[in-house]
Amino acid sequence: MDASAVDFERVQRAATAIAGVAHRTPVMTCSAIDELAGRRLFFKCENFQKVGAFKFRGAFNAIAQLSDEAATNGVVTHSSGNHAQALALAAKMRGVPAYIVMPSTAPSVKKAAVEGYGAEVIVCEPTLAARESTADAVQIRTGATFIHPYDNDDVIAGQGTAMLELYEQVAELGELLDAVVTPVGGGGLLAGTCIAARGLNSSLRVFAGEPAGADDAARSFEAGRRIPQTAPDTIADGLLTSLGERNWQIIHPIVERILTVSDDEIVAAMRLLWERAKLLVEPSSAVALAAILSRQFEPIAGLRSVGVILSGGNVDLERLPWMRGSLGIAAK
Amino acid sequence: MDASAVDFERVQRAATAIAGVAHRTPVMTCSAIDELAGRRLFFKCENFQKVGAFKFRGAFNAIAQLSDEAATNGVVTHSSGNHAQALALAAKMRGVPAYIVMPSTAPSVKKAAVEGYGAEVIVCEPTLAARESTADAVQIRTGATFIHPYDNDDVIAGQGTAMLELYEQVAELGELLDAVVTPVGGGGLLAGTCIAARGLNSSLRVFAGEPAGADDAARSFEAGRRIPQTAPDTIADGLLTSLGERNWQIIHPIVERILTVSDDEIVAAMRLLWERAKLLVEPSSAVALAAILSRQFEPIAGLRSVGVILSGGNVDLERLPWMRGSLGIAAK
Repeated sequence: MDASAVDFERVQRAATAIAGVAHRTPVMTCSAIDELAGRRLFFKCENFQKVGAFKFRGAFNAIAQLSDEAATNGVVTHSSGNHAQALALAAKMRGVPAYIVMPSTAPSVKKAAVEGYGAEVIVCEPTLAARESTADAVQIRTGATFIHPYDNDDVIAGQGTAMLELYEQVAELGELLDAVVTPVGGGGLLAGTCIAARGLNSSLRVFAGEPAGADDAARSFEAGRRIPQTAPDTIADGLLTSLGERNWQIIHPIVERILTVSDDEIVAAMRLLWERAKLLVEPSSAVALAAILSRQFEPIAGLRSVGVILSGGNVDLERLPWMRGSLGIAAK
Repeated sequence: MDASAVDFERVQRAATAIAGVAHRTPVMTCSAIDELAGRRLFFKCENFQKVGAFKFRGAFNAIAQLSDEAATNGVVTHSSGNHAQALALAAKMRGVPAYIVMPSTAPSVKKAAVEGYGAEVIVCEPTLAARESTADAVQIRTGATFIHPYDNDDVIAGQGTAMLELYEQVAELGELLDAVVTPVGGGGLLAGTCIAARGLNSSLRVFAGEPAGADDAARSFEAGRRIPQTAPDTIADGLLTSLGERNWQIIHPIVERILTVSDDEIVAAMRLLWERAKLLVEPSSAVALAAILSRQFEPIAGLRSVGVILSGGNVDLERLPWMRGSLGIAAK
């Protein structure tokens, strides 16, 4: 088991590495949603980040921290999601090769997007074992460095930079955050947020929202040990994966509570963000707001000003979850 | 015929009136769209404005400029669009009554939205004559001040504040705008933009995008006199109306060119904004970008940095224009 070596200083170094490269995404507010939530919410809009998701921060930082020698051989990962595109773009920006292992079941549009950034896509069988062995083989063949989507210190440090900015941007508005809420899947964003939050202000509270259909983090917190996710079933397709080991080690002592929400609650929160705040976010992003609007959040005292990290905006515009006949929750 | 008395100072006074009340909406950039356009675009995101459209600026300013005595009797307008909601909210904020005349054909959701801000809705026959006579009757009954959606000096001055902010925000990014492009319908936004642009920088060029299916402004420019719109037919439902008289007087000597675009071009530009920039905008907003991406814009020299005012984000999320079976262009 790897222990994590991410501390606040490492998040600050990541912030220096991504400065002027990643977008300092805006923080938005919406009085209509504040009224529903009964508190002031500050949305950190990572849907406006490069490649449409916070993942660019961690991927860019991980590549930035490689020595010139290591970087020359490129990077490899297995992902069909936002991390794949983020790593491909970050590699292109440093001018090094990227090898992306994708399951044969990945949509061709996602493959094309990664190839559009100049990365090499290696297709494998759609099992975790096949993904890992294929990535191993690429590593041996090319000497590329493996960059895990979330169980990686530089990735975690990079994701933590969103929290640094959010805190600073809210302060610029003359407010002080009482808490921050992020979605949790593998735990890269949440772990980075935890370390940044502790370094910024020891009284800043950290919560996470998690889909009830992929609730390994909530079950892990209950059990006091990491329990892997099996057979996830949720519309929040960015949060299907199991919590990483080093992510668990980081978040366990810091996160106050993991709040699980149903797909109906996720879709309702997503629609609120689209309709009232005009924020085009993916279902995984809406999980944090759904948690805040849920009954579980209501009795928690002292949360007047709450930061919400909206993780990304990559959504199929042909098929929105509230439309009849979509594959989303409304059709279930 | 009323001559307009809007000058740069009046736009600056409007900026003072709306400061801290209207949102200073963000300016966003998108490298993928810049590549397509072959220039640097700066999107002024009025979809994030209060009530989801720039109209709040003009409505709030018009009410702010009323004397206490006049304000007491409230305001009246005829509109079923964004101006109706904007005026209703602005009146509520000053604590005065708002009377909104709406055609019986207006969707009940729009009526409900206006009533949600505490305004009184007066339903009339769906003709311009009925709208005007009903509004006249309300004025006589209540003593309310009529606030035209665009043919009004304080409304025009208020809309001009978006240009003031855009110019300043682009300067904060270390860039200087060569030109600005707005959509044109009644001409409130465009007229305000013209006056603000001339006051800011005499070499700043102003263009407008207009739907081919509601091209009265383009035809007026060609004829050198105002030609009213008849039987408009376009997906850009915020731009159906005829150019106002004082709007025409202001924009005619300043606007370099009106560029007309097809509904197909509007839908393609809207989809680009949603997909690549994650900006949830209504079709009318996409008209300005469609004009920039059209062949007519290509040969115009010297436009390296261009501001684009995205006018609003109020769109029916059940029925997006690129979806099969929608009433949008994709179904035609």
